[in-house]
Amino acid sequence: MRILITSGPTRQYLDPVRYLSNASSGRMGAALALAVLERGGMPVVVSGPVGIDYPEGAEVHRVETTVEMLEAARSLFGECDGVIGAAAPCDFQPETVAREKIAKHPDRTPYRLQLVETPDILAELAKTKRADQWIIAFALETEDSYRHAVEKIRKKGADLVVLNGPASIDAVTTDVSLIDSRGRIRAELHDTKEQVARAILRHIAAFDACRTNVD
Amino acid sequence: MRILITSGPTRQYLDPVRYLSNASSGRMGAALALAVLERGGMPVVVSGPVGIDYPEGAEVHRVETTVEMLEAARSLFGECDGVIGAAAPCDFQPETVAREKIAKHPDRTPYRLQLVETPDILAELAKTKRADQWIIAFALETEDSYRHAVEKIRKKGADLVVLNGPASIDAVTTDVSLIDSRGRIRAELHDTKEQVARAILRHIAAFDACRTNVD
Repeated sequence: MRILITSGPTRQYLDPVRYLSNASSGRMGAALALAVLERGGMPVVVSGPVGIDYPEGAEVHRVETTVEMLEAARSLFGECDGVIGAAAPCDFQPETVAREKIAKHPDRTPYRLQLVETPDILAELAKTKRADQWIIAFALETEDSYRHAVEKIRKKGADLVVLNGPASIDAVTTDVSLIDSRGRIRAELHDTKEQVARAILRHIAAFDACRTNVD
Repeated sequence: MRILITSGPTRQYLDPVRYLSNASSGRMGAALALAVLERGGMPVVVSGPVGIDYPEGAEVHRVETTVEMLEAARSLFGECDGVIGAAAPCDFQPETVAREKIAKHPDRTPYRLQLVETPDILAELAKTKRADQWIIAFALETEDSYRHAVEKIRKKGADLVVLNGPASIDAVTTDVSLIDSRGRIRAELHDTKEQVARAILRHIAAFDACRTNVD
């Protein structure tokens, strides 16, 4: 069992110094890597800039931007059984990146920044997904959470979505709902990220087994 | 000797999840705190979100945004001999902060973000500065570095500016020029942040001594 895990935030620069990002810590990715190791599998982590350490034994690839995360994930996915998208990649990036540090200047205020969408990593991986591979997405929502999570299942071709809220960012514990590809809530958990990671791995094992039975 | 040190980045949120920031690690602030302790002084650190630890014995105040950093610095400055502005506070912030996570939507792309300037922490402190207090600014420039650094001396009422470049962000070593209030380059250093911090403290001691002689 070789499982691709995207983890942590990405950064999208406005100029050589400033960037857009979020407070994703990589803790959920590290917990998932540990859970894969506990089951005797190999976690292949593609991580944005984080301060935490990934468990020893995990294969870790470091990236900074969303496009770098996509490229690394794309090149590694083929050799994996599935992917868990635990990262919080920036989904917007400045349309242009200033070559020099943007200077403060009263005449230029407000400074107008045009943001365009970055590629959707899991949706891109879904395009190359084989029938024996699976995709697990994370959805972090602040309103209409269930509806947005179900939309993500479709957009990302996901087999399971882990729905959580902003309180889980950079936190030790998390509140999640596991929603299957038909939109059914399979579990609701409030626990440490380590325990939630183990529960996600149990679900993967279960639908892996179902699939084998069906095939 | 009680020295106020601002350190690390700040964050300015676009919505409950995404923010503007930079990769400032707080290492220069930690090195300065250590250098103050070595001289028997008390470092009073106001720090944005960082992954590093400040030396034991330092007084540390944690903040997230530029306005929070300004408020903390303002309330602490009166009791200090001077301030070293080693932080890299965001100097732009979104004009409005979305209450809910901004959803990706093809019709809304490009997403236009209006950025306005945040308050200038050292310039604000300069307004309340007593004659026996001093201000040391850091300037991180990518072009016309010397000119921008000298402009900062004026804008921030600084007694000394530490000019460096983007290569010093989140790095162990740094290349700096120390420029005095008359625009004279007093030292050029390429060294670890600990050694650069000690050199800055020696300059503070020197101009503190000069001032005492003049008075």
